[in-house]
Amino acid sequence: MESNNRNTAILLVYCPDQRGIVANVTEFIDNNNGNIVYLDQHVDFEGNMFFMRLEWELEKFLIPAVKISDYFQTQIASKYKMQFELYFSVNKLRMAIFVSNMSHCLYDMLARHQSCEWKAEIPLIISNHETLKPIAERFNIPFHIFNITEENKADQEKKQIELLKDNGIDFIILARYMQILSPMIIKEFEHRIINIHHSFLPAFPGAKPYHSAYKRGVKIIGATSHYVTADLDEGPIIDQDVTRVSHKDPLETLIRKGQDLEKIVLSRAVYLHLHHRILTYNNKTIVF
Amino acid sequence: MESNNRNTAILLVYCPDQRGIVANVTEFIDNNNGNIVYLDQHVDFEGNMFFMRLEWELEKFLIPAVKISDYFQTQIASKYKMQFELYFSVNKLRMAIFVSNMSHCLYDMLARHQSCEWKAEIPLIISNHETLKPIAERFNIPFHIFNITEENKADQEKKQIELLKDNGIDFIILARYMQILSPMIIKEFEHRIINIHHSFLPAFPGAKPYHSAYKRGVKIIGATSHYVTADLDEGPIIDQDVTRVSHKDPLETLIRKGQDLEKIVLSRAVYLHLHHRILTYNNKTIVF
Amino acid sequence: MESNNRNTAILLVYCPDQRGIVANVTEFIDNNNGNIVYLDQHVDFEGNMFFMRLEWELEKFLIPAVKISDYFQTQIASKYKMQFELYFSVNKLRMAIFVSNMSHCLYDMLARHQSCEWKAEIPLIISNHETLKPIAERFNIPFHIFNITEENKADQEKKQIELLKDNGIDFIILARYMQILSPMIIKEFEHRIINIHHSFLPAFPGAKPYHSAYKRGVKIIGATSHYVTADLDEGPIIDQDVTRVSHKDPLETLIRKGQDLEKIVLSRAVYLHLHHRILTYNNKTIVF
Amino acid sequence: MESNNRNTAILLVYCPDQRGIVANVTEFIDNNNGNIVYLDQHVDFEGNMFFMRLEWELEKFLIPAVKISDYFQTQIASKYKMQFELYFSVNKLRMAIFVSNMSHCLYDMLARHQSCEWKAEIPLIISNHETLKPIAERFNIPFHIFNITEENKADQEKKQIELLKDNGIDFIILARYMQILSPMIIKEFEHRIINIHHSFLPAFPGAKPYHSAYKRGVKIIGATSHYVTADLDEGPIIDQDVTRVSHKDPLETLIRKGQDLEKIVLSRAVYLHLHHRILTYNNKTIVF
Repeated sequence: MESNNRNTAILLVYCPDQRGIVANVTEFIDNNNGNIVYLDQHVDFEGNMFFMRLEWELEKFLIPAVKISDYFQTQIASKYKMQFELYFSVNKLRMAIFVSNMSHCLYDMLARHQSCEWKAEIPLIISNHETLKPIAERFNIPFHIFNITEENKADQEKKQIELLKDNGIDFIILARYMQILSPMIIKEFEHRIINIHHSFLPAFPGAKPYHSAYKRGVKIIGATSHYVTADLDEGPIIDQDVTRVSHKDPLETLIRKGQDLEKIVLSRAVYLHLHHRILTYNNKTIVF
Repeated sequence: MESNNRNTAILLVYCPDQRGIVANVTEFIDNNNGNIVYLDQHVDFEGNMFFMRLEWELEKFLIPAVKISDYFQTQIASKYKMQFELYFSVNKLRMAIFVSNMSHCLYDMLARHQSCEWKAEIPLIISNHETLKPIAERFNIPFHIFNITEENKADQEKKQIELLKDNGIDFIILARYMQILSPMIIKEFEHRIINIHHSFLPAFPGAKPYHSAYKRGVKIIGATSHYVTADLDEGPIIDQDVTRVSHKDPLETLIRKGQDLEKIVLSRAVYLHLHHRILTYNNKTIVF
Repeated sequence: MESNNRNTAILLVYCPDQRGIVANVTEFIDNNNGNIVYLDQHVDFEGNMFFMRLEWELEKFLIPAVKISDYFQTQIASKYKMQFELYFSVNKLRMAIFVSNMSHCLYDMLARHQSCEWKAEIPLIISNHETLKPIAERFNIPFHIFNITEENKADQEKKQIELLKDNGIDFIILARYMQILSPMIIKEFEHRIINIHHSFLPAFPGAKPYHSAYKRGVKIIGATSHYVTADLDEGPIIDQDVTRVSHKDPLETLIRKGQDLEKIVLSRAVYLHLHHRILTYNNKTIVF
Repeated sequence: MESNNRNTAILLVYCPDQRGIVANVTEFIDNNNGNIVYLDQHVDFEGNMFFMRLEWELEKFLIPAVKISDYFQTQIASKYKMQFELYFSVNKLRMAIFVSNMSHCLYDMLARHQSCEWKAEIPLIISNHETLKPIAERFNIPFHIFNITEENKADQEKKQIELLKDNGIDFIILARYMQILSPMIIKEFEHRIINIHHSFLPAFPGAKPYHSAYKRGVKIIGATSHYVTADLDEGPIIDQDVTRVSHKDPLETLIRKGQDLEKIVLSRAVYLHLHHRILTYNNKTIVF
């Protein structure tokens, strides 16, 4: 459901599974005059967990937006030991983009932002290199350079966090950012940092995956967007896609074909995150 | 959800959308001690229609299986002007396979049947040719030959219908059956005849789609499984898949690659039908 | 083979098939000290036609670049009734982009151009609307507006052709340009106009293919890049790609997902054209 | 090129790259009145290696089939330090199938064999379990059971090799055979044992890849056919394919969807091997 033009509330929920959750939650919305425009639930029978995404129109909803969270906690969530997140479609998320030297993902995101495909704000771009500054300027987005060395890394990340907070950043995109984030910044933005890895994870984690794929002689290459966790390339996978290669394709062709995958797979993850369609549980994603 | 080993009831529902349907239906199951193991709903906002597939365990369900339909009609369906279908996972569906001269789809289905991938019975195979009789014999399935000519078609189809009814056939698979069914038999088995068409519909409907695809120089070929309606190759699409071809591929390669698609796409549709995961509305399918 | 950094000649050839062509042509290159870095041939047995793409390094090649065509015609092509095209990797092709209101393909191409993924020049953009002018300005590319009405179409296209010629344009990209070109301009740039059609041709030719796809209930949508001919959406197909959709996807989602396909499939076609990897014969493409 | 009905010779060649190879080889065929129906070459610039597959009609070829190898060695191969393999389309390869308990790949191959999609002979099936014996009987193919324990493994494999040799087996298919072959048998059938691994290698090598894929939360699963080498799941990859999964898919669904991939990807590899379209070099395949 493309909800760009509706004034809705979006509820993401998970809790131990038991009878009656759907009935109770939808009744809560229903009784308060909310018109449900999206409901999808998922039960993980193995782990006995219940997950749901619910979206409803706020127009005639009796509970004022600012109080929904409170009411829902009291009347429903406490009863089922629920974890929940509540979002409103009117709120534009603010995203920071981290880049290094490659422009394909950055261009793709800026084009989507510019053409209003995404309801988001991009207050700033952060880089460890000057290379892509002209692109940021072309799109009138502040570009902040943080040179990273082994010595200054902790300091620089502290400054980055400060900058991100000052700008009210909701989430971070690593658009082929060639630096490993330290746990400090990862913790600060838990499940709010999206990375694009240029392989079909868990194949070829770490550096130079196209080189490894070429060497191994795979017939298909891929790209993976995932939330960043403290374990490199081990975070919850949001989306993946692949494309065929053959013995005819030298390394450069793998890289070229892969870049098309990277930008599409990354932008799909951003879209899903922007629309609050991802729940993370047990290092896996439920994508509604 | 793979429900092969559960004793469940499956409910397929559609009706005009309004507030409270999910709450009401899940409450009905809940209040009668049913444990919901699958719930997926879909709202078509354009047509203002609500669709749902619900599956729940019968073990402790208070209403006896034979009375569920009656109770649900009275307490829920009538209230919402619902159309609904109710199935039980213990009931094996009985399918008839129609073939002509090509064996790839037939073999694929018999193998799945034989290895118990499918919970179904195949009481008979019908053909307009003798060609595949040895395969039927190999798998000990009665093979009925109905030669079809322009003159005898109506008569033969009457006999086919009789045979199908005598054998309690629930649904029909056209596994590359090279005869157009007449409206009589289509009506008798409405939304219960699945065909595999060897193209990416609506591209290349009718006869010899690979020849047309080859002539047109497409770079991708496909296959489409769909319910048969009176309009040739125009029925609700259940599944489609595609594979790449190139200028290097002569017509025979298109046919060979296409056959792999056909059998997989057909068998996927059969699987979905067997598990009651397809709702048909407005000549489209909702596939849960 | 990615030939970005080699000084090579590229030969595209086709002729009636007969014994010895490959031997003769490679001997010709070989005898003149050319190092073949790419050879791919294709024989269409049905039509008895031979096709080949050959690329060789010019560094030590005995025949000067300007005379290769002449020599090849005399010594080889005339013998085999060959049609051939000869290109040099040092020559940057000049492309004109035609757009209307949608920016996704334009942005994608400008980003590739800007990041030097493409060895091409984009001297101008032509549009029938003002909408995308700011993008052209952002990338410092002249933007020419030609309002098209039924009355002025012939005149405007004459002016367009003049402008294209004055700028030494080699080929044209229709990047979701919402005007049907008249035969005059098509003839002027035969097999040098690439269009992106937002469907899996030959399914859904003409206007509003996503609307038609949505109405038909397809499970996969596609995009097709092709050379433009006088028959609308009937020209030789260069590339196609597809993506899955489901009953959950409203029309807007089809459009959104489709746009990602469009830009990738169009840019792939441009890449192939820029590298002289496409031969057109009998309204089909041989893509090396 | 589907060469089922032609009387052709097939030559697979590799050697250090140098000028004139294609010219020389095609001239050799040409001068001896061979009509080339397939030629594809590949140059690995990184490793400076040349690879070619050549197929020509034997009808009017001057050199008798039994002497081609000798003549080619003398006149061409020795000159270029070529490795080459020569095959004749009239010779049916003899394949042995190794299975354990799962039938999907076995059924798929027997169906292709039975319907003459494959020009091959299947003189025997080998298993470490009795489970699939009825299928072998259904298709009238001798079924040999070799129980394997840690103690008897060496002995049993010796007997297997003897049986394979006695039956003139050309190559072996491991159709979900759940035993690791020892180096002895691998060496005996070097690059002539094809395995299907139920993951997208190099992701999830070894045991229980679907369990690992499920645990990792991947969004795409795959299957890989490869030649078996002494390093488990590290041999040259022949083909791979993938399919989408989601959080909705429990482990059993991954397994079910994966099995469709496995049988198709394995059968594609067998087809390629049967048509001598695979060259192995440096633990990678060149697939013509």
